Amino acid sequence: MTVLKTMGALAKQAERTLRITDESEKTKALECIAAALKENIPEILAANEKDLKAAREKLSPSMIDRLTLTESRIVSMADAVLAVSRWPDPVGRVLEERDLPNGLHIRRTAVPLGVIGIIFEARPNVTSDCAALCIKAGNACILRGGKEAFHSNAAICHVMRQALERTGLDVNCIQLVEDTSRSSAEEMMSLTEYLDVLIPRGGAGLIRSVVENAKVPVIETGAGNCHIYVDKEADPEMALNILFNAKTSRPSVCNAAEKVLVHKDIAPRFLPAMAEKLSEKNVELRGDAASKALLPQIKEAEDNEWSCEYLDFILGVKIVDSIDEAIDHIERYSTHHSECIVTEDQSAADRFLASVDSAAVYHNASTRFTDGGELGLGAEIGISTQKLHARGPMGVGQLVSYKYIITGNGQIR
Amino acid sequence: MTVLKTMGALAKQAERTLRITDESEKTKALECIAAALKENIPEILAANEKDLKAAREKLSPSMIDRLTLTESRIVSMADAVLAVSRWPDPVGRVLEERDLPNGLHIRRTAVPLGVIGIIFEARPNVTSDCAALCIKAGNACILRGGKEAFHSNAAICHVMRQALERTGLDVNCIQLVEDTSRSSAEEMMSLTEYLDVLIPRGGAGLIRSVVENAKVPVIETGAGNCHIYVDKEADPEMALNILFNAKTSRPSVCNAAEKVLVHKDIAPRFLPAMAEKLSEKNVELRGDAASKALLPQIKEAEDNEWSCEYLDFILGVKIVDSIDEAIDHIERYSTHHSECIVTEDQSAADRFLASVDSAAVYHNASTRFTDGGELGLGAEIGISTQKLHARGPMGVGQLVSYKYIITGNGQIR
Repeated sequence: MTVLKTMGALAKQAERTLRITDESEKTKALECIAAALKENIPEILAANEKDLKAAREKLSPSMIDRLTLTESRIVSMADAVLAVSRWPDPVGRVLEERDLPNGLHIRRTAVPLGVIGIIFEARPNVTSDCAALCIKAGNACILRGGKEAFHSNAAICHVMRQALERTGLDVNCIQLVEDTSRSSAEEMMSLTEYLDVLIPRGGAGLIRSVVENAKVPVIETGAGNCHIYVDKEADPEMALNILFNAKTSRPSVCNAAEKVLVHKDIAPRFLPAMAEKLSEKNVELRGDAASKALLPQIKEAEDNEWSCEYLDFILGVKIVDSIDEAIDHIERYSTHHSECIVTEDQSAADRFLASVDSAAVYHNASTRFTDGGELGLGAEIGISTQKLHARGPMGVGQLVSYKYIITGNGQIR
Repeated sequence: MTVLKTMGALAKQAERTLRITDESEKTKALECIAAALKENIPEILAANEKDLKAAREKLSPSMIDRLTLTESRIVSMADAVLAVSRWPDPVGRVLEERDLPNGLHIRRTAVPLGVIGIIFEARPNVTSDCAALCIKAGNACILRGGKEAFHSNAAICHVMRQALERTGLDVNCIQLVEDTSRSSAEEMMSLTEYLDVLIPRGGAGLIRSVVENAKVPVIETGAGNCHIYVDKEADPEMALNILFNAKTSRPSVCNAAEKVLVHKDIAPRFLPAMAEKLSEKNVELRGDAASKALLPQIKEAEDNEWSCEYLDFILGVKIVDSIDEAIDHIERYSTHHSECIVTEDQSAADRFLASVDSAAVYHNASTRFTDGGELGLGAEIGISTQKLHARGPMGVGQLVSYKYIITGNGQIR
């Protein structure tokens, strides 16, 4: 039996008890994890320093920033665990209940997904976020972080498992894969006997590889080629504010705007003002021929850019003849994460909101709100860009399945 | 562009209009399909005769029975389409709605899944059932049936597409793959650009192949190694009736019982009565050592039989020392489709229903009720045995996803 299969069997065993564990015990365990994270800050920082020492020689400053833990970041991680603990328990909720004419009583009841595998990259806070969300919804988890964060992740998991032990929960509700080579990720993708779901969190390459190769059911997360459509009836000032916020407030995240589509009737007024405003943050514009005609100073976009996610201070700009052209463009190039229409015309808004098939569609608001915390779902395990099971931010409530509980007095068919 | 990619592009295009089509138009289209099926019975029977002619030389009698259409079977297919048309439209239903403190208004709203691929085997009625369910929930479908039923499927699809054309819906809401070779199934599994979901319907081999090889998100359906646990506090007569029904009423279907687990305290009384009753239908028993000691005439079960689905008049018999041993056995060997406890002891029943993690768990009723029609879900597209998205029978209500519709007045983050 391989190491991962052994972990899988231990997780299944842990999940069987966690499945029938009371809400109060799960809450207590999460509170204990939060306290333990705060109590063990020095140990976690020391482990993080080992990772940082190795990283300083080879990683980019932004990667190092993602990897770095500080006292206040660990306190935030603990607070996130506490926030999850206070979330209502989704397990056992009766989703539907009825009596059939033959006397059978049916309750469709929420149950945990089971064992959730999570493959992620270099952010150590993912370790405690994901573990807390999984446990709250009654799931055991097998975490495989990136090798750059291995010492940090191992220290965080060790602290969390000690806390589980103190509260009497099976420590194997949380397990960390120690082998951070590519082969352990590949083995997880085939671990159908033990994993009920696999969630990849990280860059586009990781996600594509998991989606293409996994035999375990996957929830695809993440990539966001998000569009803002500035309609001919847009309030130009509102459009500018929304676009500026969606593009520049945090360009490295998946809900940041990557493209602006501007109606031809408003473009001559809007584009120069937009270019001036975005220049405050040195945003580089890449335009189609029509927008380049209005803004001769900008670069021309390559064909393949319309489907790409810059994750940087770069914005693609295209002029469209109609709302239909905007909707068609989004249908063709979007990753179906978040799209927005800015307009004062309610019927145009209704048309856009009904026709655009993305996880979140906005009228007159920034795409940056596609986030579990912002939408009131609490912490999130990722943002689903597929349509099966869950779409958009996935919080505790999305980490459950259901089963039919049917009671009778001898009914046969 | 391959034939299948072209079909995918046409399906996407059809789905974009179907997505925003009114309930009344979808209902009208389904009524028109039902009428057209009845009007074209001679044409469909003639096509079916072509399939049957080829089949008679090589298929088993039970396969030929599945393939055979009659006037009354086609009328039943049409009636099933009508029943689907009367089901409430799940699309557009607001699943959750709230205002955030910042003034954003959020509606989580049901939307179609998009384009659904269905790979199935030799039963032509699947063609009309699946097409009707998909259209009702706003989805375009690409159907790939087995080669044995090709002429029948082609005739049924032709009739349905003509009906769509008459009602003004895009005919490409329903498409049939003409290439029934293995390679077309393989290409569908990789058609991530066009298919939102792939559902295999058929034997265990087909399903395993799709689950292991598909890059498109899959809903696993079907296999049912279902257990009846006869507790020490069971009413023996009720247990016998339930078991007899679950095993013999239709042994070839996935909700039929395949194994009986009998508590050791009741086994000496129950087993001889059970053997006698099941002998009425010539059910072959395969027992563990302990049950063989009580019923010396029966065969001993091989180790690999505990996880298999006989789909025949065969029943595995095992004596267990306790309810926990029964639950452990089910956890280990079940396909997590449907399991039943027969007992008069409510606390034993509660323990079983909470601990057994299957799509449907029963107390004192036959596993044969795991069926969309029986559970009041209407027609079903399959019975999911995975935990992601939908579990158990999948009707119209399970063929949707959702999106967040967020409206504001300029909110930024």
